[in-house]
Parts: sequence; structure tokens; C-alpha cells
Amino acid sequence: MITKAKKINIVLDASVPLQNPIKIHESMRYSLLAGGKRVRPILCLAACELVGGDEVTAIPMACAVEMIHTMSLIHDDLPCMDNDDLRRGKLTNHKAFGEETAVLAGDALLSLAFEHVAAKTTNVEPQRVIRAIAELGSAIGSEGLVAGQMVDILSAGKEVSLDELEYIHVNKTSKLLEAAVVCGAIVGGGDGIVVEKLRKYARCIGLLFQVVDDILDVTKSSKELGKTAGKDLASHKATYPRLMGLGKAKEFARQLVGNAMEELRHFDALRAAPLYHLAGYIASRQN
Amino acid sequence: MITKAKKINIVLDASVPLQNPIKIHESMRYSLLAGGKRVRPILCLAACELVGGDEVTAIPMACAVEMIHTMSLIHDDLPCMDNDDLRRGKLTNHKAFGEETAVLAGDALLSLAFEHVAAKTTNVEPQRVIRAIAELGSAIGSEGLVAGQMVDILSAGKEVSLDELEYIHVNKTSKLLEAAVVCGAIVGGGDGIVVEKLRKYARCIGLLFQVVDDILDVTKSSKELGKTAGKDLASHKATYPRLMGLGKAKEFARQLVGNAMEELRHFDALRAAPLYHLAGYIASRQN
Repeated sequence: MITKAKKINIVLDASVPLQNPIKIHESMRYSLLAGGKRVRPILCLAACELVGGDEVTAIPMACAVEMIHTMSLIHDDLPCMDNDDLRRGKLTNHKAFGEETAVLAGDALLSLAFEHVAAKTTNVEPQRVIRAIAELGSAIGSEGLVAGQMVDILSAGKEVSLDELEYIHVNKTSKLLEAAVVCGAIVGGGDGIVVEKLRKYARCIGLLFQVVDDILDVTKSSKELGKTAGKDLASHKATYPRLMGLGKAKEFARQLVGNAMEELRHFDALRAAPLYHLAGYIASRQN
Repeated sequence: MITKAKKINIVLDASVPLQNPIKIHESMRYSLLAGGKRVRPILCLAACELVGGDEVTAIPMACAVEMIHTMSLIHDDLPCMDNDDLRRGKLTNHKAFGEETAVLAGDALLSLAFEHVAAKTTNVEPQRVIRAIAELGSAIGSEGLVAGQMVDILSAGKEVSLDELEYIHVNKTSKLLEAAVVCGAIVGGGDGIVVEKLRKYARCIGLLFQVVDDILDVTKSSKELGKTAGKDLASHKATYPRLMGLGKAKEFARQLVGNAMEELRHFDALRAAPLYHLAGYIASRQN
């Protein structure tokens, strides 16, 4: 049995062939095929199946979400943004290919995402494809991913309130997860309350992911994390433990995972199993 | 009577309201509403009408094309790309708002373009909207705009062949013009040969635009151009007059405008008048 992540990897690999101009395609492939966990595409496929759709239907949409996620990582790593040299133990895209290529690779992945959904989605009512494209677009732009990144940059070195912290994470992390789940459900045939429950589920696990990340940073050693622990404290970054205390941050995480599970009660438990599993995995991860 | 360009400006203005986060929306509006000639949106609306569609139908698509054009200008001006400080007599986006905001404003405009088409296009068969979105996406990515910019950057300081020069211009300039015209025709109800003739027309005028630009650079004074003349020569940039001689470059321009007009012969002359006019305007412009 090929797992969902493997299916996604095969389609992503085929979606960016190594053609001319070679350098831009090498750069796109370098980041797109760098071995991410494919959480967003898996959620997209799982949501499609949960509402009764065939997994295959949502594969183009799932790949598009991963292309967009990859674009956001490439652009976020740029010198004018977070200025990171390494990602997942490899050189960041601009370190490997140059800044100009990294900017262009991100742009190309972003447009390819929409082209891919429009050109490759089959056996879905066209009106659903259009709804999903609009949803995807709104998750990325100045009321989504970009808004989160902008406010994150603007708040560097300033005191950040809990509301602002939530705004940043909802936009930087939750919105694309939300689009992955909602778009998977839309192309799978979902509507109305079903889509809205999945949207709430995704928003909870997006926030949960950040809260857990913040907690691990202060409770684990570098060895346990596989990356530098205590980095947030050292860099005076706004985090949930800093703003609400460690005990309350843990309580908030418990609450979020509970809320996420609650939204899933609407569905057949067996079909919803992958989404329960994912919420549990995010809540209990140790690194 | 409100002209096409004015209608486009009104819709573009409304499509990016000045909301939170203020800075990213200011930055997007700064470049989007900087007073471009709106050649691409006008072409899009004209193509829609030419095939019998109502102009209104193509307005979201026309605005999307202009958002994408604006994104490409913002990213092309970045320090890691062409490193320009001024555009149309104003500070470039990154000079006015900072590099990180300029990167994000481009990303947001690109995703908004697709969202806008998907969410705002009405009275068009959904299947046509999807076809147009796929067409638009392919004009931007690593087989379109981005490919042209990549090869342009890679060829800096090298000897460029006529084939390479054409590759750069076809991708950097013609493909988006082509998408504007083709997408306008698609949402307007055009199919088959009609769309293909308009595609060829757009490709000719895209190249024509570049050839004329190159010719003006060596035949006009700075005063006549309103910008520094002889800049291409001084910077050793590959141009048509340099590669084929001034006489042959002029001959090539004549040939291109002839070919563009030829494609229009298929259509009702009155309806095609705006497209004839545009080809003539590009061929005969003096600055």
C-alpha cells in the first residue's frame, strides 16, 4: 500500500519536471522535494475522504497546498525576511541557488499551484473547483499567510499581546491548514456545516501546532528537539509560555486539542480517524 | 463614457481596500494604482468583446492580469533582481516600503489575482473560468514570466543569440499579453481557431513592443524618450538593433505588425478596431 505522503511525493515530483530553464526547475524541485512531512496534503486528502469523496479527486489540490507551503518557506527564509541559512539540515533555497532564483522559484510555485488545480482536477463539478481556488487564494494573500508574516515582521522587538500572537499564528499557520482541509472537503463533495466543522477543526490544530512548538522550546533540551532549545527565550520572541505562563499554555493546548476533537464528533469515527490521529500527533509530539 | 482603463482603475482600487495590516495594503495599492497604461486589461476586455462577450464579464480577469503584471514589476525591481530605485518617476516598492514588504506585496497580489478571478467572475460557464485560470497560471510560472526573467538574469554579461533574445521577450512580455487576450476571449465565449488567432496576435504585439523599445533606445534623444537614451548600448544589453542591425530590426517590426494585423482579418473589422488600434499604437510610438 502506498501511503498518502508517498502518493503526494510522486505527483509533486512529476509536476515540476527538470526542463529548461534548468536552474529555476532545480531550485523549485530542491525545496518542493526536500522531504517535508506533507501534513497539509495529507489533511486535504483525509478531508476529501471524510466527506465521501475519492482520495484521487483531491490530489491536485493537495499538491497545490504543498507548493504554496514551499513557496512561503522559500520566501520567509530570504535575507530580507528571516534570513535563514539552513532548513531541515539543508541550505535554504537562496543559499543554494541565489536570492534572485529563490524569489522566482517561490513565484513560480505559487502560480503553478493554481494552474495545477485548474488543469489537473478531474471528476469534480467545475463550480466546486472554482470555490476551492477562491478559498486557497484567500488563505495566502494579505488576509492570510502574507498578513501573518507582515505582522510578525512588524512586531519584531516589540511587546506583543496575546491577541496579536494569535493573529500571527492564525494567519501564518492555521489559514493554509484550513484551506487544505476545506478545499479537500469541497472537491470531495462537502458543503455547509460539514465544511464549517472541518474549518474549525483545522484552525484549532493550526494554533495547537504553534502552542506545542512554544512549549517544547522551553521544556526540552536541544538534544531532545534536534534543534537549539530555548531559542525563543534567547531571542525574546513572543510565545504562549512567555505571555500566559507555562501552566496556562499547557492548559490552552489541552483545550485546543479538545475543541478540535469536538468538531470531529459530527463525523463517522472510522472515517475521521486520520484527523483524530493528526490532532493527537500534534498535541503529543516531543520534538 | 467611462473608458476601459478607468473602469479597470475603479475595480482595482476596490479590490485592495486599505485595511489591516495597513502596511501591506498600502504597499500593494502603491504599485497597483501607480497609473500604468493598463494595456493588458484593455486587451483582455477588447478580446472578450471581439468574440461577442459582454465587457463586464472579463473585468475580474482583466484586473487579475494587471495584479500579476504589477507583482512582476515589484519583484523585478528588487535589489537581488534588477535593483531599480525608480519606476515611472516614483520610488520602487522596496525603496518606499522595504524589501520584505515588497516581496510580500508581490506574493499577495499574485494570490489575489487568482482569488479575484475565481470569486468575482459571474455569468461565465464555470468550465471556462477554470480554463482561463489554468491559462493564466501557465503564463506566469517557470514556463512563462519566471522563465523569461530567469534566462534574462542568467544571460547578463554573456553573448545572447537572436533565438535567446526572442525566448526572453516571448516569456517576459508576450506570454502575459497572450494570457490577457486569450483569457478575455475564453470568458467571452470564444473557442478554437478564434482563441488561437488572438493568441498569435498577442504574441506578435508582445515581441513588437520589445523591438520598438530597442529601436527607440538607439534612434531617439533622452529628451524625446523621457528617459535616458542609449542606455542599452551603454549597458551592453542584447537588443534587436545590436543583434540584427537597425535596418533589419525596423524590417522585423514591420513584419510583426503585419502578422498581428493578419490574424485580426478573421474578425469583424469594427469589433476588432481596438486591437488594430493597439498594434498600430505600439508600432508607431515615439517614446
